[in-house]
Amino acid sequence: MNLKQVKALTFDVFGTVVDWRHSIIREGEQIGRQKGLTVDWEEFANKWRNGYVSLVGEVKNGERAWTTVDSLNRLSLNKLLREYQINDQFTENEKDNFNRVWHRLLPWPDAIPGLTWLRKRYILATLSNGNISLLVNMAKYSALPWDCIFSAELVKAYKDDAHVYQMAIHLLGLQSYEVMMVAAHTYDLDAAKRQGMQTAFIWRSQEELQRPHKSKYDIVCDDFLALAQKLDA
Amino acid sequence: MNLKQVKALTFDVFGTVVDWRHSIIREGEQIGRQKGLTVDWEEFANKWRNGYVSLVGEVKNGERAWTTVDSLNRLSLNKLLREYQINDQFTENEKDNFNRVWHRLLPWPDAIPGLTWLRKRYILATLSNGNISLLVNMAKYSALPWDCIFSAELVKAYKDDAHVYQMAIHLLGLQSYEVMMVAAHTYDLDAAKRQGMQTAFIWRSQEELQRPHKSKYDIVCDDFLALAQKLDA
Repeated sequence: MNLKQVKALTFDVFGTVVDWRHSIIREGEQIGRQKGLTVDWEEFANKWRNGYVSLVGEVKNGERAWTTVDSLNRLSLNKLLREYQINDQFTENEKDNFNRVWHRLLPWPDAIPGLTWLRKRYILATLSNGNISLLVNMAKYSALPWDCIFSAELVKAYKDDAHVYQMAIHLLGLQSYEVMMVAAHTYDLDAAKRQGMQTAFIWRSQEELQRPHKSKYDIVCDDFLALAQKLDA
Repeated sequence: MNLKQVKALTFDVFGTVVDWRHSIIREGEQIGRQKGLTVDWEEFANKWRNGYVSLVGEVKNGERAWTTVDSLNRLSLNKLLREYQINDQFTENEKDNFNRVWHRLLPWPDAIPGLTWLRKRYILATLSNGNISLLVNMAKYSALPWDCIFSAELVKAYKDDAHVYQMAIHLLGLQSYEVMMVAAHTYDLDAAKRQGMQTAFIWRSQEELQRPHKSKYDIVCDDFLALAQKLDA
């Protein structure tokens, strides 16, 4: 496809824009120090994310009714706190607050400079499974310069459901080839491609085991600054 | 209600944030000079807006299927160009472009300084009948600092339908009294009040015939800077 046709970029958020793992480890360690807990917070963060992914799977299979990522994260957190036998160390308010660490995820170092550059030429939107309030709070907390916030919540589905991508294309009032999906996950880009969108893979080494071949997507690169360079070229 | 409970402000856009009338007059005059047309562009702008309002009425009455504001504006424009007997002076592309003047409306002088101030403390969202792409393009064109773009398009309805206000409250993940509707039109604020939202009336003298009594809404003031002062007080 022709990169010159791109008018808007839609971004996956968890893992692509923000470093969920280290943001959670950091807050976990703070809580652990305050409460005197001995927890491997890296393992905890990974299990929390895996719990979410597995619950999304249940929604996709029809085993579970659609609900927000906030609710899925909370279910996953409840289970983990029991597994680590630290559930009684947290009040309900403290659990609510810890669950909202997903609203306070910090961007990868290249994200804000890259987005700021890209925003001069393109409409920048989120296209995340995260619910709208989560994405709005995160954008304010981490100063992410979005033009608009799109979420799979708007169609009560989860990526890679085609409705999610079609919703964004439609609400932007654009043709599919005028919208480029930017993500660190191949399943997301493969789905966007099936909808006729352009695709940019960002290599975040903790998110995918392998860097895909450069022929697989319209752009394959290492960060948002490289993305901006390739799009301006 | 208690102003200290407010966490997010939702804004009507046409007339409240942007001065649609003078933006249209300005572009109309430019086109008029280029094409040598003798048109009263103030009357034209008012008739265009009235045409839109009347078409929204048809949608609300069930006489017309829901469609975007872009489409309603275009229907209204087509009718007007024939009425002024200047339809054959415009190519289809020129009509499309003129119709998109609604994507290029300029803010009232207090809007950007006021929003910039308010944004430090509150989530700022549009809550407009304007379709998402119109609002996104306008925000980029006029540098309006929104945290998120909500539109009646998301529920395929028009204000003052209760679903429009409920959608915004719900997507923000807030209680109704934590969200304040800001508008220059009483019908809009009255509807927001019925949903339990807080309300701020902004007096734009060309939008309402009378300034309502200050007891009618939580805030009644003259511009966004006064709004920011009253909310910080």
